[in-house]
Amino acid sequence: MADKPIRVALLGCGTVGTEVTRLLRDQAADLTARIGAPMEITGIAVRRPNKHRDVPAELLTTDAAALVASDDVDVVVEVIGGIEPARTLLLDALRAGKSVVTANKALLAESAGELFAAADASGADLYFEAAVAGAIPLLRPLRESLAGDRITRVMGIVNGTTNYILSAMDNTGSGYGETLEEASRLGYAEADPTADVDGFDAASKAAILASLAFHTRVTAADVHREGIASVASADIAAARALGRTVKLLAICERVTDTDESGETTESVAVRVHPAMIPRSHPLAGVGGAYNAVFVEADAAGSLMFYGQGAGGAPTASAVLGDLVAVGRNMVQGGRGPRESAYAALPVRPMGQTPTRYHISLDVADRAGVLSQVAAVFAEHDVSIAVVRQEGRTDDASLVIVTHAASEAALRSTVDMVAGLPVVREVVSVMRVEGTE
Amino acid sequence: MADKPIRVALLGCGTVGTEVTRLLRDQAADLTARIGAPMEITGIAVRRPNKHRDVPAELLTTDAAALVASDDVDVVVEVIGGIEPARTLLLDALRAGKSVVTANKALLAESAGELFAAADASGADLYFEAAVAGAIPLLRPLRESLAGDRITRVMGIVNGTTNYILSAMDNTGSGYGETLEEASRLGYAEADPTADVDGFDAASKAAILASLAFHTRVTAADVHREGIASVASADIAAARALGRTVKLLAICERVTDTDESGETTESVAVRVHPAMIPRSHPLAGVGGAYNAVFVEADAAGSLMFYGQGAGGAPTASAVLGDLVAVGRNMVQGGRGPRESAYAALPVRPMGQTPTRYHISLDVADRAGVLSQVAAVFAEHDVSIAVVRQEGRTDDASLVIVTHAASEAALRSTVDMVAGLPVVREVVSVMRVEGTE
Repeated sequence: MADKPIRVALLGCGTVGTEVTRLLRDQAADLTARIGAPMEITGIAVRRPNKHRDVPAELLTTDAAALVASDDVDVVVEVIGGIEPARTLLLDALRAGKSVVTANKALLAESAGELFAAADASGADLYFEAAVAGAIPLLRPLRESLAGDRITRVMGIVNGTTNYILSAMDNTGSGYGETLEEASRLGYAEADPTADVDGFDAASKAAILASLAFHTRVTAADVHREGIASVASADIAAARALGRTVKLLAICERVTDTDESGETTESVAVRVHPAMIPRSHPLAGVGGAYNAVFVEADAAGSLMFYGQGAGGAPTASAVLGDLVAVGRNMVQGGRGPRESAYAALPVRPMGQTPTRYHISLDVADRAGVLSQVAAVFAEHDVSIAVVRQEGRTDDASLVIVTHAASEAALRSTVDMVAGLPVVREVVSVMRVEGTE
Repeated sequence: MADKPIRVALLGCGTVGTEVTRLLRDQAADLTARIGAPMEITGIAVRRPNKHRDVPAELLTTDAAALVASDDVDVVVEVIGGIEPARTLLLDALRAGKSVVTANKALLAESAGELFAAADASGADLYFEAAVAGAIPLLRPLRESLAGDRITRVMGIVNGTTNYILSAMDNTGSGYGETLEEASRLGYAEADPTADVDGFDAASKAAILASLAFHTRVTAADVHREGIASVASADIAAARALGRTVKLLAICERVTDTDESGETTESVAVRVHPAMIPRSHPLAGVGGAYNAVFVEADAAGSLMFYGQGAGGAPTASAVLGDLVAVGRNMVQGGRGPRESAYAALPVRPMGQTPTRYHISLDVADRAGVLSQVAAVFAEHDVSIAVVRQEGRTDDASLVIVTHAASEAALRSTVDMVAGLPVVREVVSVMRVEGTE
């Protein structure tokens, strides 16, 4: 067993960073045995050193660049988040041959290619299990366990804040605004919840998942992104009436097209949007801050991964797993998996990615309404899968679930339906995923 | 990219082996890109070459030992199963510095130490993801993703045959014997179902899981093992009456004892037995040939892994993932994780591992029955958690769920209760897991 310690620089010391320091200290003996050498923190870069009373003061510094450049550092753990200064710091570390463990989904989703290139040039490792789905071992299975299979689809709930809000709206019947306020008050939503509720966080994670699953490079800008701010209590109620619930889903698909001559071309479609799913679907039961991700592969079939998607300790667990991997590579020789983007698949725009839709209408309760509405769908070539009409005192509720349709065709259809005199209100329009 | 192909010897060519050859052929271009070198099969050892028409005849040989020893082989994939000749063949391969990928749970559960020692001596890799839970990435997460965490419990359904039989008994109300016959007829049970129904298969998997989770060496002989042959339709009915269902569970626990002076000692308890779990428990919904495993760790919290636990393609997916890992190590340098058994924890005998029990009795419907029965439990220091008594025409059903009790205390209690004149029949005695 090597005695030379593996020296870790920690960039950022919020909830996750504090847990990382605690675990490195509390499990020191076990980690040493598992790695083959002790692992110690030689410096922690923070903005305000006097705010961090639970880590040794002598480790704290405000000069992150100097810490990364220090000769006393073998591995850099980054839990600052955001693009800069994280990007520059990690590129500096990798160029200097220092391995990097990061939880930074935004940076990975924007600059993975650049980071991997720097790692490759120097032979350093780049691990980022904590960037997606917190404690759930998901990236390593995609990069390694399923490396001999052909993954066709990854679909899941990867943002705890929006999942908490949608679950609460479903449980209480409350609207989006008041539920978000309550979530902020309880600490389930950040002071500025934009990254979560507008789907940026989930889109970054979807980009990372798609890149690994399909061996191609997908950035956050390639991801079709819709947040939950437009989900109304009417949508939730409409879903409930049909035995469905609303979830913010990240969906990564491999799409194969066959042209007239029989030639096939592959592309990827990556999207984040709210969708109605049947209450019987396993994702429907995933509540609160939990994450769950389905993976479909040709040989493996359907797999599901479930666990805590955020929080200090769960995220730190993923960081520590990566640190052990880096440590073992240093002690035994060898490197972790490199970027695998050889497939270089084009990204299919959302306009060409048909999905099924649920449309809920308030209509006049009289003969001929359905035929008028159905005619509009037919005119736009949007095929209807299910219709449910329910009379009330003087009007009726008409629910239509379509077969897969393009967003453009669906929008034109809904616009024309809304203009029919027999239609009083378009109550809800939402994508549908999963089968009953 | 290296042009020198990585040469694979395949030992065994049944359902899994055939799928491995198919995937290596169909995904050759992708595998080459992912590994950095092509991978090709240079020989397939089988017992009866004329039985294998779907693999190239020129690759077939009956001399497995010569194939393993051949200079044209870099990696040996073993899907024969059983202890010998697999053990000797794999030890020969590892000693010669040839990496091994195996799906052999029985061998791993008996000889992991010996195999790892041989791998270490020569620097070869030893991977065995396919040995537990088929396609589900489970061993790599335990060995690597959670390597920085402290796992406290692994519990799951790891045998598809018994899960199919128990699900069918629950659905139809049929007895064990006829359900097993039906399962054999439909191909869900082997001609000789002993390894599955008597729990040997699950016990091997539990030994492997416990070894990896707790960084210690657990063999199949260390696992308390009860199969499903004694599960009666009365047990299933009794479970159903209380909103429970019966599953064959593999349970691996880390146990911490504190002595009078405050010193703590750790041990592991590993067991396979049928147990009643609430129908609301996520494992209750795992049907047919699916596997699901819960992992609890200090920092990560609860994780679940779900997917197909057996079958040609799913198992081959796991084998291929390991082959890519071996290939990447050969191309990039480095090695996969070695045995981590430093914790060397003692195994706690089942007699010292208390569990909760469900006892279902037919009793006379008259005053004082419960007090007589309860007195016997009290006398044996078996604490009662729940009692439910239900009168019928001239007798009554009495269901008792205990707090955790040792098997010995429970058996003595049940023996004495059975001898009470007011007790007509002990209908069902079964362990209980999970909370409502």
